[in-house]
Amino acid sequence: MGEEGGDGLSVTPAAEFPAPTPDEVRALRRVGERWGAARAAGRAAPLPVDPTLGRYRLRPAPSRFGRLTPIELFRVGEPDELVATERANLPGSRLGRGLARLRRTVFGPPLTSAAVLYERMRKLVALPVLSSDLLSSVAYGPEAMLTVLLLAGGGALALSLPLAAALVLLMVAVGVSYRQTIPAYPHGAGSYIVAGDNLGSLAGLAAAAGLMIDYVLTVAVSVSAGVRAVTSALPGLAGFTVPLGVLVIAALLAGNLRGVRTAGNLFVLPTYAFVVALLAVLGAGFHDAAGRGFAALPPPDVPAVEGLGLLLVLRAFSSGAVSMTGIEAVSNAVPAFRPPEWRNARTTLGWMVAMLVLLFAGITVLVHLDGLAPRPGQTLLSQLARASFPTGPWYALVQAATALILLLAANTAFNDFPRLLYFMARAGHAPRRFLHMGDRLAFSNGLVALCLPAAAVFVIFRGHTEALVPLYAVGVFLAFTLSQAGMVVHWRRERGRRWRRRLAVNAFGATVSGLVLATAAVAKFTEGAWVVVVAVPLLVLVFQRVQRHYRTLHRALALRPPPPAGAAPPEGEELPQQVRNLVVVPVARLNRASLRALAYAASLGQPTLAVHIAPEEGEADRFREQWEAWGDHLRLETIVSPYRAVVGPLAHYLEALHASRADLVLTVIVPEVVPRRRWHRPLHSRAEHRLRGALQALPGVVVTSVPVHLGE
Amino acid sequence: MGEEGGDGLSVTPAAEFPAPTPDEVRALRRVGERWGAARAAGRAAPLPVDPTLGRYRLRPAPSRFGRLTPIELFRVGEPDELVATERANLPGSRLGRGLARLRRTVFGPPLTSAAVLYERMRKLVALPVLSSDLLSSVAYGPEAMLTVLLLAGGGALALSLPLAAALVLLMVAVGVSYRQTIPAYPHGAGSYIVAGDNLGSLAGLAAAAGLMIDYVLTVAVSVSAGVRAVTSALPGLAGFTVPLGVLVIAALLAGNLRGVRTAGNLFVLPTYAFVVALLAVLGAGFHDAAGRGFAALPPPDVPAVEGLGLLLVLRAFSSGAVSMTGIEAVSNAVPAFRPPEWRNARTTLGWMVAMLVLLFAGITVLVHLDGLAPRPGQTLLSQLARASFPTGPWYALVQAATALILLLAANTAFNDFPRLLYFMARAGHAPRRFLHMGDRLAFSNGLVALCLPAAAVFVIFRGHTEALVPLYAVGVFLAFTLSQAGMVVHWRRERGRRWRRRLAVNAFGATVSGLVLATAAVAKFTEGAWVVVVAVPLLVLVFQRVQRHYRTLHRALALRPPPPAGAAPPEGEELPQQVRNLVVVPVARLNRASLRALAYAASLGQPTLAVHIAPEEGEADRFREQWEAWGDHLRLETIVSPYRAVVGPLAHYLEALHASRADLVLTVIVPEVVPRRRWHRPLHSRAEHRLRGALQALPGVVVTSVPVHLGE
Repeated sequence: MGEEGGDGLSVTPAAEFPAPTPDEVRALRRVGERWGAARAAGRAAPLPVDPTLGRYRLRPAPSRFGRLTPIELFRVGEPDELVATERANLPGSRLGRGLARLRRTVFGPPLTSAAVLYERMRKLVALPVLSSDLLSSVAYGPEAMLTVLLLAGGGALALSLPLAAALVLLMVAVGVSYRQTIPAYPHGAGSYIVAGDNLGSLAGLAAAAGLMIDYVLTVAVSVSAGVRAVTSALPGLAGFTVPLGVLVIAALLAGNLRGVRTAGNLFVLPTYAFVVALLAVLGAGFHDAAGRGFAALPPPDVPAVEGLGLLLVLRAFSSGAVSMTGIEAVSNAVPAFRPPEWRNARTTLGWMVAMLVLLFAGITVLVHLDGLAPRPGQTLLSQLARASFPTGPWYALVQAATALILLLAANTAFNDFPRLLYFMARAGHAPRRFLHMGDRLAFSNGLVALCLPAAAVFVIFRGHTEALVPLYAVGVFLAFTLSQAGMVVHWRRERGRRWRRRLAVNAFGATVSGLVLATAAVAKFTEGAWVVVVAVPLLVLVFQRVQRHYRTLHRALALRPPPPAGAAPPEGEELPQQVRNLVVVPVARLNRASLRALAYAASLGQPTLAVHIAPEEGEADRFREQWEAWGDHLRLETIVSPYRAVVGPLAHYLEALHASRADLVLTVIVPEVVPRRRWHRPLHSRAEHRLRGALQALPGVVVTSVPVHLGE
Repeated sequence: MGEEGGDGLSVTPAAEFPAPTPDEVRALRRVGERWGAARAAGRAAPLPVDPTLGRYRLRPAPSRFGRLTPIELFRVGEPDELVATERANLPGSRLGRGLARLRRTVFGPPLTSAAVLYERMRKLVALPVLSSDLLSSVAYGPEAMLTVLLLAGGGALALSLPLAAALVLLMVAVGVSYRQTIPAYPHGAGSYIVAGDNLGSLAGLAAAAGLMIDYVLTVAVSVSAGVRAVTSALPGLAGFTVPLGVLVIAALLAGNLRGVRTAGNLFVLPTYAFVVALLAVLGAGFHDAAGRGFAALPPPDVPAVEGLGLLLVLRAFSSGAVSMTGIEAVSNAVPAFRPPEWRNARTTLGWMVAMLVLLFAGITVLVHLDGLAPRPGQTLLSQLARASFPTGPWYALVQAATALILLLAANTAFNDFPRLLYFMARAGHAPRRFLHMGDRLAFSNGLVALCLPAAAVFVIFRGHTEALVPLYAVGVFLAFTLSQAGMVVHWRRERGRRWRRRLAVNAFGATVSGLVLATAAVAKFTEGAWVVVVAVPLLVLVFQRVQRHYRTLHRALALRPPPPAGAAPPEGEELPQQVRNLVVVPVARLNRASLRALAYAASLGQPTLAVHIAPEEGEADRFREQWEAWGDHLRLETIVSPYRAVVGPLAHYLEALHASRADLVLTVIVPEVVPRRRWHRPLHSRAEHRLRGALQALPGVVVTSVPVHLGE
C-alpha cells in the first residue's frame, strides 16, 4: 500500500491523495463506459449557476463573511481552476474565526504547499536542531553510569575508564553503521523503514514501537533534567517542578507547530553555547590536571552497598549507554536537509558523533582525574564546572547552557516523532490523519500525539529523571539493533561495491547494539524496563490491527470492473441506472420546516413516502385529519408508538422496508432546525441527531438533512 | 402558546404534539391547493415497496435483530396503522441493546401511553407521598427556631410558645388559603399557574423560580437531615456523610424513574410509621407531664450570646416557618389524584394541615414542659424521644422512623419538580424535552434535572443541614405569597358565590406569607438567603429568554398562506415547483464510495456538479486525468487549496454559489464510510463530520450522507 503514495519516500502534502493503480484506472474506465444512460440528466443538462463563480469577475456577492468588505476568497489559477486564498480557510462561525485568528497569532500565518521545499535545513542549522538530544545526553549519561558504580563503593569508580572506552567504541561503531545507512536510504533512513524493508514488517513495527517510546521518554527525561538543573540553581522553584515541566512541553509544542525553520532558529544558539561551555570546562580542567602532572585525585570514600558483580557492571554500562540516545535523529531526518540531502546528512552525523565522543570521553576522564563522584544535591556536571571555574560568572554560564540544551533536547523528538508517524501512516500502520500537514506545513497531529503521552509520563513520574532513565535504553537499542541488522540483509541482497566490508561494519554495529539491548532489558527489568518490554509488543499489535482495518477499507473501496448483470449488490451501485430510490420523510407535525422537507422530497421526482410516529391512537387520527386538510399529496404511513419512542420504531420500520426490497436506496429526509446561538441547542430535541445515529448503522439508508435556519 | 397543548391543563404524552390553530389549518389548505403539479411524481407514482409491510403477514424478513428468530416488531392496529411493539424501541447497536436491557431491569418494562390513567393515586397513598415533606419538617423546624432563641440565653426559650402560636395561625391561614385554591384550579393549582394566570407571566415565573429552588433544597436538606439522623445513631458512618447522601439521592432517582405508583407504594409505610411514632412520643410525654401537673421544668442555664432584639425574634420566627415547607405539594399534584381529583386533593390537604398543626404544636409545648433545649450532639426530637421512652426499643424505633421519613421527604420534590417543569415547558418557559414522558410514564428529564443540582448542593455544603436552612424559607414563601395574591385577583375577577369572604381569606394568607418572606429575606440575608435573592431574578431571566427563543421558533415555523408569486424566499419553499435543485458532490478521490455517491447523485436526475479540492496544482491535474478516464460524465470543478484545508474552502465555495443564485437549493452529497467497530473511528478523517458542521450554518444547503458500511 505504501507504494501508491505518489512520489516515493519524500514528505509531501499530496500523500493524503494516493493515486489509483493501473488496474483501478482500467476498472474506472469500464465503469464509466456503462454510465451512458444517465449522462443526459447530469452532464448535458445546463447547470443553473456558473460553477466558476464568473471566473474573471471574482467578487462573490456579499455574504456572512463580509457584508461590507467583499473579500476575494478565490482567485483564478490555471484557466480551469479556482485557487482558494488564505481567507477561504477561515471557519464560518464567529467563535471559530476568533480561534483561527488566535492560532495564527501564536503559530504564524499558514504556509502554502508550495513552500514545503523552502522549509529545508542548512547543515549549520540542522546540527544544533538534530544534535541537541544526543549531545545533551552527556549531561546525565556519565552520571547515570557512575551512580550505579558507586553502589559498589568509591573504589569501583575506577572502572569508569574501561567502561567509557567500551562505550566510545560502541558510539563509533553505531555512528559508522548509521553513516553507511544514510546514502542507502536517501529518503529517510529511519529504523522503521530500514528494518521493515529488510527484515519484514514485524521488525519494522517493533523498531517503530521502540523509537516511539524512546521519543516520548526523550521529551520527559530531557525536560525533567533541564527543570532539575534550573531548580538546583534556583531552589525556590523546586516546588513547581511539575507545572514548570508541563509549561516547557507546551512551549516546545507551540514552537514546533510554527514550523521547522523557525524552530531551528530558536535552537541554534543554546546548542553551540553548550558545546563551547563544555569545551571550556574540559580545557580548564585538563589544564589544571596538567599542572599536577595528570595525577588522579582520590575518589571520595563511599562504603559499598552492593558487591561488585557482573550484573552491576552491566547495569552501569547500559546506564552509560543512554548517552547515545538521539544518534538516530539524523538518519530519520534526511529529507529535511537541503539537497543533496544524503550527503549533508552524513556529514552532519559525522560531526555529531565526533563531538559526542569528545565530550563523553573528556567528561569521564576529567571526573576520574578530579576524583569526583555523583552526589545527591548537585549534578556531576555542576561539580565539574565548579572545579574548573571556582570563581567568576563562568559556573553560572555553564549551568545555564546545560539547562537550556536539556530543555531543547526534547526538540529532537518533535522533529522525528511526527515524521515517523507520517511514514507509518503512509504504509497504513498508523491513522491517516498523521499524513496531514497543518497550516504551517508541520505534522500538527503527530506533534500533539507526542506531547500528550510525554506530559503524562512527566506528571506521573513527578519529573524525577532517575526514575525515568531505566525505561530509556531498551527502546532505543531495540531500534538500533533492528536497523543495523536490516542493513546487513540489505548489503547481502544488493551486493554493491565493497559490500562485504559494509556488511561487516553493520553486523558489528548490530551485534554490539543487541548486546546493550539484552543487557538493558535484563539488568534493569525490575527497575522499570519491564514497562517497555510489555509496551513494545502491545504497540506492534495495535499497529497491525490498524493496518488490517485499512486493508479492509482499501479492499472495500478499491475500484473493480462492474459485474456484467444490471443488478448491483446493496451499497455497491456504481451506475445511476442501478439506483432504485424511495424517499422517506418522517413528519412529526406539519409546520413550515416539515412542509419544506416534503416539498424538497417531491422536487426530486422520486417515489416518496411520508411516515408519522404517533404516541397515541388519538394523536394519529388528528394528524391524518391535518394531512387530509393539506391535500394528501403524498402517501402517508402512520405508526403508533405506544411507548412514546420515536427513533427506535422509525429505524426498525426503515429496516423492515429495506429487508423487503434489498435493492432499494432509502433516502430519509429529515428537517433540521438550526438555532443561531449555541446555548439554544438544548432547547431542541435534536431528534434528527439521534435519528441519524440510529440510521447510520442501517445498510442502504441515505440520510438527508434539510436545515431551517432561525434568523433570530 | 400553552393553549394549543391539546386537552387543557392535564398531563398527557400528547403535549409534545400540539395541534395546529384553525388559522394554521387554513394556511395548510391553501398551501396544499397549490401542490398540484408535483402530485404526479409523488402520490400517483407507485411505491416500489409495500409501506404497510404486508399488513396481514407481518413477519419482516430476517434482519440484524434476529436472523434466526424473526421478531414481530410491528403489529396491525386500526386498518390503516402499524403499531410498534415494545421490541421496536430497542436500539440497533449491541451496546445500546445491552444498556436498554439493564435499564429495563432497574426501572421496569416500559408502559404504554394508554396506561397513563391508571397511574393515579388513591387518597391513602397520596397522603404519605405528598405529606412526607411537610410532616418531616417538624423534625428540624422547631429545633431551628429554638436554636436561634437560645442565642439570647436559656431564658429566651419561653418565647417559643407565643412564636409557635403565631406559626400555627400562619399554618392554618396558608392551609385554608390553599384549600380554596384547589377547586378553582382543578388541573393543578401550582403557584406558577395561579400567579401567572392572575398576576401576569413575570409573577408566575418568579413563583416558579422560588419553587424550583425550594425543591432542590428540599432534597438536599431532607437527605442531609436524614443522613445525620442515621450517623448520630451509628457514629461509625459519620465519615461517609457525603457518599451516603449521594447514594440516597441516586436511589430516589431510580425509584421515581420506575414511575409514580411504585414510588407511592414505597413511601406509604414510613410516613405512617413516623406519625404514629411521634404521636406515641407526644402521648407518653404529656402523660408524664400530667403526672407532675403540667409544671414546666426549668430550661438549661445557657448564657446569652446576643441581646434579645426584634431581629432575633424575627429570625427565630422565620426559622420555625421552615416547618411549613411542603404545604404546597398537594395543590401542584391535583391531576395525580384519582377522580374527582380536586375533591380528593382538598380532603388530603385538610388532613395534612391538621396533622402538621398537631405535631408542631405538640412538640413545641412538650419541649417547653420538659425544659429541653437544642444541643450539638443530639437532635431535639431525639432528646424528646429519650425523655418519653428512657428504656426499651421505642427510642430506636422513633429514630428509625424519623430517619426514614426524612430520607423520603425528598420524594415530594421528585413528584412536583418535574410536573412544574412540564407545565413550564408547555408554556414555552422551559426546554420542550421536559414534556417528554419516559418509558415508565415518568418525566425522566425533569427527574434528572432535579437530582443533579440537589446532589451538587449536597456535596458543596458537605451535607450540613444547618448551613442549608437559611436558604430555604425565601423561595417557598415567595411562591406562597404570589400564589395567594394571585387568588385575591382571581376572586375579584370571578366574583362567584361568597367571593368577598374567599378574597379575604386569601388576602390574609398572602399578607402573612409576605411578612414571613420579607422577614426571612432580610433577617437571614447575610446567612445565605442572598443566594436565593440573587438566583430568583436570574432564573426568571433564563425562563424569559427560553420563551423568547421558542416564540421565534414558533413564528418561523408557523404555517401561513403561501405568497401569490411563484418565487419563494430562501428556505421558504413550500411547493415542489419552487425548489430549484443543484446537486454538488465533493470528491476527494475516485473509489467505490465516491462512485456510489456520484451514481446516487445522478440517479436523482437533477443538475449535478462534482467538486474536487486539491492540495497542489499537480494533484489537481492528476485527478482531472482520472476523471477523464472515468468518462467525464458529470461537470467537474477543481479548487486548489494551497493551505491544504478542505472543509473551509468547500464551504466558502458553496456559499459563493448560493450567493450568486439565492433561490437554489444546494444538495451536497457526501460519501461516508461507516466502520463497524467504534475504535476504528479515529482511523478515519471524519472530514464528512466536519464538513457537515461547517455547512450547517449555510442557508439553503442540504447535506446528504451516503453511507458505505465496512463489513469487516
